[in-house]
Amino acid sequence: MSELEVFWGSGSQPAWSVLLTLEVKRIPYTSRLLSFSAGEHKTPEFLRLNPRHKVPVIRDGEFVLNESLAIVAYLDRKSPEPPLFGRNAEETGLVWRAISEFQSYVQPPLVEHIVRPIYSGKVEENRARIEEHVGSVHAELEQYELALRTRPWLVGNAISAADLLIFPFFMSLMRAATRPAAEGLKLGMLPLTRVYPHLAAWVTRIEALPGYDKTYPPHWR
Amino acid sequence: MSELEVFWGSGSQPAWSVLLTLEVKRIPYTSRLLSFSAGEHKTPEFLRLNPRHKVPVIRDGEFVLNESLAIVAYLDRKSPEPPLFGRNAEETGLVWRAISEFQSYVQPPLVEHIVRPIYSGKVEENRARIEEHVGSVHAELEQYELALRTRPWLVGNAISAADLLIFPFFMSLMRAATRPAAEGLKLGMLPLTRVYPHLAAWVTRIEALPGYDKTYPPHWR
Repeated sequence: MSELEVFWGSGSQPAWSVLLTLEVKRIPYTSRLLSFSAGEHKTPEFLRLNPRHKVPVIRDGEFVLNESLAIVAYLDRKSPEPPLFGRNAEETGLVWRAISEFQSYVQPPLVEHIVRPIYSGKVEENRARIEEHVGSVHAELEQYELALRTRPWLVGNAISAADLLIFPFFMSLMRAATRPAAEGLKLGMLPLTRVYPHLAAWVTRIEALPGYDKTYPPHWR
Repeated sequence: MSELEVFWGSGSQPAWSVLLTLEVKRIPYTSRLLSFSAGEHKTPEFLRLNPRHKVPVIRDGEFVLNESLAIVAYLDRKSPEPPLFGRNAEETGLVWRAISEFQSYVQPPLVEHIVRPIYSGKVEENRARIEEHVGSVHAELEQYELALRTRPWLVGNAISAADLLIFPFFMSLMRAATRPAAEGLKLGMLPLTRVYPHLAAWVTRIEALPGYDKTYPPHWR
């Protein structure tokens, strides 16, 4: 087996970023979809690949790697086209800034304080906390909206790792907003085409990437 | 002013990483040390550089950049020697994995649950929480110790961004462990040369870097 293998799970945002990267770079791969409910991420075989039992993991010949950011950086160095971290030092800095700021300021409130309580059906007991963090997420989304007004991608004129790493989390937020548990919450995200028309166009742009369908979380269908 | 300027603050770990990067790459820079207590990170002038009023920020001619990881990646692309993100795809992946895993598994307990309560003198009310998280930090430090047994740096045989990004946080942990507020806490970190002799040697190796003294937090002296 010399082809690159990807171990992933449906609904893992970091794994989705890796699949998108492989499609954008047109790198052939073998999909290893693990069932979390069947505990396939905790088998002895998988723990040998990643003792932290997290996806995504890739195996490329003898080389095994976990952590989505690391995998995307590895794939970018191995298959440089299209470059996902910019074509010069300034672009590299701006892509990493977008990723770092997302991880520091958007991802924690989005995941912990909005998406997770909605997915787990624990909205009532967390209503105040959810609505408190919705404001800070909106403040960040407004910056994205503003940027996308004048360019097609989050950083510059070419697709970058920032788009691929942020997109899956944004989609999980959109999905949470449409769930029955979110009814009555003042999220103010929908309809996306009206609230954030340029973010909506960005989503459409990513959905139009060749191979996108293969990356979409199976259990979301 | 064409020389690169660095805006930093004493005791900011991310800023320390940027200073170390500049020294390792021997890039000339102008130091702009901000006084947090005087609110110099909240002046209108600084907010124009970074509306999030965080250090580090660099200004390189017209180009302004915040977020330490982004700055280190920018500097590495601009001045590639010595390479801080590996010399090939595999090394790049391993450096980013070390950084990502540190950010996910070490930095949160280290900063929030150990260093911050000690620095702020709130040890008594947080004793259980501190001692709970010390265990998970030790588990990670043991991995570093194991790695450093067979090589001089955290990833591979050359200094990398992983060393420079992790070192300042490790030093803040060491400093916290020696503070009077930490007396009576079962941290189990000291003396470092006995508990983690290879980590102690790694610290010594970084302290021996040319220019290290210029990067040391002034108020720690």
